[in-house]
Amino acid sequence: MTIEETDSSWITRGGTPAAPHSGRLHPLGLREVRLRPGFWQQRQNTNRTASLNHIEQWLERAGWLGNFDAAAAGTLPGARRGREFSDTEVYKLLEAMAWEYGRTGDPGLDERYRAIVRRVAAAQEPDGYLNTNFGRPGQAPRYSDLEWGHELYSFGHLIQAGVARARTAGHDELVHVAVRAADHVCEVFADRGLCGHPEIEPALVELYRVTGERRYLDQARKFVDRRGHHELADIEFGRAYFQDDVPVRDAEILRGHAVRAAYLAAGAVDVAVETGDTALLDAVTRQWHATVARRTYLTGGTGSRHQDEAFGEDHVLPPDRAYSETCAAVGSMMLSWRLLLAHGDAVYADLIERTLFNVIATSPADDGRGFFYTNTLHQRVPGTVPDPGQLVPRAASSLRAPWFAVSCCPTNLARTFAGLAAYLATRDDDGLQIHQYAAATLATTLPGDRRVACEMDTEYPVDGRITIRVTESPADPWTLSLRVPAWAVGATLDGTPVTPGWNRLHRRFSPGDVVVLDLPVRARITTPDPRIDAVRGCVAVERGPLVLCAESVDLPVDVNALQIVPQLTERDGSVFATGRRVSDPPGSWPYNTSAFSGESAGEAPAGDPGEADGSGRPDGTFELPLHPYHRWARRGPSTMRVWLPLAPSAVHREPARAPENPAAQRPDPTPEGTAS
Amino acid sequence: MTIEETDSSWITRGGTPAAPHSGRLHPLGLREVRLRPGFWQQRQNTNRTASLNHIEQWLERAGWLGNFDAAAAGTLPGARRGREFSDTEVYKLLEAMAWEYGRTGDPGLDERYRAIVRRVAAAQEPDGYLNTNFGRPGQAPRYSDLEWGHELYSFGHLIQAGVARARTAGHDELVHVAVRAADHVCEVFADRGLCGHPEIEPALVELYRVTGERRYLDQARKFVDRRGHHELADIEFGRAYFQDDVPVRDAEILRGHAVRAAYLAAGAVDVAVETGDTALLDAVTRQWHATVARRTYLTGGTGSRHQDEAFGEDHVLPPDRAYSETCAAVGSMMLSWRLLLAHGDAVYADLIERTLFNVIATSPADDGRGFFYTNTLHQRVPGTVPDPGQLVPRAASSLRAPWFAVSCCPTNLARTFAGLAAYLATRDDDGLQIHQYAAATLATTLPGDRRVACEMDTEYPVDGRITIRVTESPADPWTLSLRVPAWAVGATLDGTPVTPGWNRLHRRFSPGDVVVLDLPVRARITTPDPRIDAVRGCVAVERGPLVLCAESVDLPVDVNALQIVPQLTERDGSVFATGRRVSDPPGSWPYNTSAFSGESAGEAPAGDPGEADGSGRPDGTFELPLHPYHRWARRGPSTMRVWLPLAPSAVHREPARAPENPAAQRPDPTPEGTAS
Repeated sequence: MTIEETDSSWITRGGTPAAPHSGRLHPLGLREVRLRPGFWQQRQNTNRTASLNHIEQWLERAGWLGNFDAAAAGTLPGARRGREFSDTEVYKLLEAMAWEYGRTGDPGLDERYRAIVRRVAAAQEPDGYLNTNFGRPGQAPRYSDLEWGHELYSFGHLIQAGVARARTAGHDELVHVAVRAADHVCEVFADRGLCGHPEIEPALVELYRVTGERRYLDQARKFVDRRGHHELADIEFGRAYFQDDVPVRDAEILRGHAVRAAYLAAGAVDVAVETGDTALLDAVTRQWHATVARRTYLTGGTGSRHQDEAFGEDHVLPPDRAYSETCAAVGSMMLSWRLLLAHGDAVYADLIERTLFNVIATSPADDGRGFFYTNTLHQRVPGTVPDPGQLVPRAASSLRAPWFAVSCCPTNLARTFAGLAAYLATRDDDGLQIHQYAAATLATTLPGDRRVACEMDTEYPVDGRITIRVTESPADPWTLSLRVPAWAVGATLDGTPVTPGWNRLHRRFSPGDVVVLDLPVRARITTPDPRIDAVRGCVAVERGPLVLCAESVDLPVDVNALQIVPQLTERDGSVFATGRRVSDPPGSWPYNTSAFSGESAGEAPAGDPGEADGSGRPDGTFELPLHPYHRWARRGPSTMRVWLPLAPSAVHREPARAPENPAAQRPDPTPEGTAS
Repeated sequence: MTIEETDSSWITRGGTPAAPHSGRLHPLGLREVRLRPGFWQQRQNTNRTASLNHIEQWLERAGWLGNFDAAAAGTLPGARRGREFSDTEVYKLLEAMAWEYGRTGDPGLDERYRAIVRRVAAAQEPDGYLNTNFGRPGQAPRYSDLEWGHELYSFGHLIQAGVARARTAGHDELVHVAVRAADHVCEVFADRGLCGHPEIEPALVELYRVTGERRYLDQARKFVDRRGHHELADIEFGRAYFQDDVPVRDAEILRGHAVRAAYLAAGAVDVAVETGDTALLDAVTRQWHATVARRTYLTGGTGSRHQDEAFGEDHVLPPDRAYSETCAAVGSMMLSWRLLLAHGDAVYADLIERTLFNVIATSPADDGRGFFYTNTLHQRVPGTVPDPGQLVPRAASSLRAPWFAVSCCPTNLARTFAGLAAYLATRDDDGLQIHQYAAATLATTLPGDRRVACEMDTEYPVDGRITIRVTESPADPWTLSLRVPAWAVGATLDGTPVTPGWNRLHRRFSPGDVVVLDLPVRARITTPDPRIDAVRGCVAVERGPLVLCAESVDLPVDVNALQIVPQLTERDGSVFATGRRVSDPPGSWPYNTSAFSGESAGEAPAGDPGEADGSGRPDGTFELPLHPYHRWARRGPSTMRVWLPLAPSAVHREPARAPENPAAQRPDPTPEGTAS
């Protein structure tokens, strides 16, 4: 292709992540939606002013950027640093910088960007291949380890970075590098081959969208269709790990490695909408719904298994061993966004909102220089403060860490925050749809050259009032569509009750017209599906789009021994429940056999109502502050839990305990008899 | 040392695993306690007639035995097969064969044994070093990877095998090999160094016990004292993985890799009792009690984490991701047995019984040619039948597999079954203590050359009656001590009520005297500590020492959607509860916000009482058969659960659900509105 083939309209609009040629809704560009001061702009600013530098410094320091220099200098493999996929962190930083440049046009940023691109470009080989970990003497041959080598995954992120640049600057050295890489991939993988980590699929479709080069779309379709036929070798975790167990069209639910699953599904949607393949689109849509119903945390997070960073079976959603990788949340948003554009249904924006406020907002430290890799819903043991100068070998930590041996999450967040405004709103032929509520300005052009623009003011999610003031409008009617979140029962639109889902105002608007949506942001109690074993007998507290949690720094008792009396109060914008401490069971064997036999057990006392814990009340209860989950672990090491066990007296009665039963007391720490 | 220093009394008594010089109780030899037809003899026979051959064949076939030949032939590393610790499976087979020979004196077995020993011995190097994976050109240098190399672990199992041979045959090529290996270890590790996998510690103490060579005990003490001081490098799982986080004397609880933790603790007890180090013994005793109280499954299994085969935090005992490795159960028994000998308390035998019947008996297939590596308490998805000719790459399976890439469990079971009789009884100066009930004969000599012998008859655990007939007795009084298990409230001894713990009969016995212990083997309901989040609102059913479970092959509903009405009946020796199916919650988002607010929720209906499922009763309930957990997955692929959620009507009432609430129904699989 030639870069001239790039759709120049994207450049003037500031670019957008994911730009399908068809679908119910069309994305806006990063210069069409701009965040204003508020919850998300603060995070986007921190990303721009702190995280991008922080990442760039770590990429230098860890030597992952230097790997490209070493490739050009011919000093690999001896000089190589980092894991087999470390190149991709550089590409994701470049993608983040591209979106950031697209919305700001900051020349200083562009200069830093070009400097990195020069180093990357210098490492590309004459035939388009580019990877610092393979193919040189002393390294494994190219494509000798498709299961674990991440080579196509790496090309995928390179191409995504090139696409971001093409959409925000139109032409660049990196775009040429990406195109040459894509051409190389199409040549080598024309007839067979598959990567253990999906990512090349959405990347190639996006490059097709930018360049119009059909060959990239065809190659992406081949990759999607090839998967699920045991093309890859079996591995310890099984082929489901990289979704090579069942073809995409036949699968019923997302499974295996959560990030891989999401990236593949996103790529499959991209292929489906560009080729008009409704069967494929339907398959992924079905999988999304099944995954939301059975394999998604309350936070929107996915992936419960530490061992293989994977989905568990249906309803296996342990809060304390939640993996809920930050990157899986990014992947989930990529998928939901594509389905939202394709179908237009509010449910996808509901999940995006949940994921944004409860995973994406949770991961980064306030200063933008630390990150959660995993996002547990129950921290049992306080962690230690990571050394800011140290790379953290372990993904799980109770405190945000500056960098990881596998550091995919910081760069994934960076590209997401840089392009975040794109998720707020869309247009169709008839008007604007607002998906996410944040202080922002929106301005776009509807077909027929009809300019529409508005300002959105809100303190959301602290407050539920959203005020939209029209600032530009054509003379004829158009439709302003507002999503009422699924949780927002009791919402009003200009004072009139509205129900969750889309609420559409089709009318003539004039500049200065104001629309007011009131979402009932009040603390509420949420109960789990009874098949989620891990949280049976617990409730969670939510407030608006925010999941709340209890954190040890606010508590007189161990969070692991906490029970809740679920009567909520709100005071000065804070939420309180009533807590109590689990009474100690008798004995030191944690399982108790008693005379319990069904109904009669209900008559037994529910145990000691609680011990005095300093701050307690006469009845042993205490005030239990609940804070937004995304704020946890920002006051030093702590323990935390989202799901709160109900105190027995609150809802049900526990089976009788019989402390006088000697069987219940043994084994006992006091030796109770010896043989001599 | 010279082999002549070996305590020849052990040889005549058939040998025993673990033979401390001091302690409250003294073990009996494998020719002093003999199993007779019954539950355990059947398993010991299967081990002898099937598993030992099966293991030997797989060791040949997988090439792990051949590694020793290749070492002798100088064709390593090219010819090497298996993981870095594969040598140890050969050693554990040799240990199993040694105990088996000790109790049977089978010359055919001895011949096979000697043939393997010749191959092992040929691979030992002149300085005593022996490991097929290190030290040759093209291999990593000796001791270059103490964290993961398993070299000292490997020596530990070699020495244990040598000890077993010394105790059962007195002298042998392998005993010499083991002694030379131990001398090498003492020389190289005199001043520093530690193995990532404990095992050398108990092995060296046991070799000291056999040889009297104090140097081995001193070296074991050094290894125990060295650990916990960050001698090993930090790793992804943290130093707790190999217990190098906290010194053994300072630790409060077992942690990290469950097998490593148990082997180390067993070695620490060995060091403590041989050196009179009561502080060290107290430390491990305290850790045992804490671990039993907070980190042990109902089955006696330990280790909840798949990722690092490790203990989780306190009360983290998920049934569905239970790892509960078979080898961890073996290690737990080794530790409990040593503490039982040291202290004499019945609690240790209680845990051994629980572990024997619910993990050790669960792992092997009926034909002795398949094994569970992990022992989950909740199987959510039926597995596939393993190919009997295939090595299984994955540890977790819903069916017993013939061999594993890491195949530690089959050989660990083999050595345990071969020496199983040793765990039944002990003696002290005044008499016999019976710890485990099984059909058996017991005969030993008390100090003063007083012969005591008896026959134990029982159908235990199906039936709770144990009849002990004295067959030999001195004229003066002695004490017969019988353990009443902690669960056995209501037991009688010769018709008189007795309580759990030790019950001692001090009297003059005459041959022909009979003592009858009746243990109340009836189904009972067990509730968990309320801090075990993963099984809140559930009960388990136990019967005698057996944990029971529900298995899908007996059920009209999905085991994951099962609830129990906990009224138990027993019929023809089988146990039945009443089951019902979880009613489907509304909508496809698994979390439900309603008007629920504490007490008032108790008034709401508990939902659909259940759907007709073919075999159901008019009220939607059905008969729910419960079988011993150790019998599960013996009727083909199935799902299974030990912990059974209580039906809401059984004990408590669930929070109100509001299916009419539209918020509870979204996201919905039916697109509910589009923007075009």
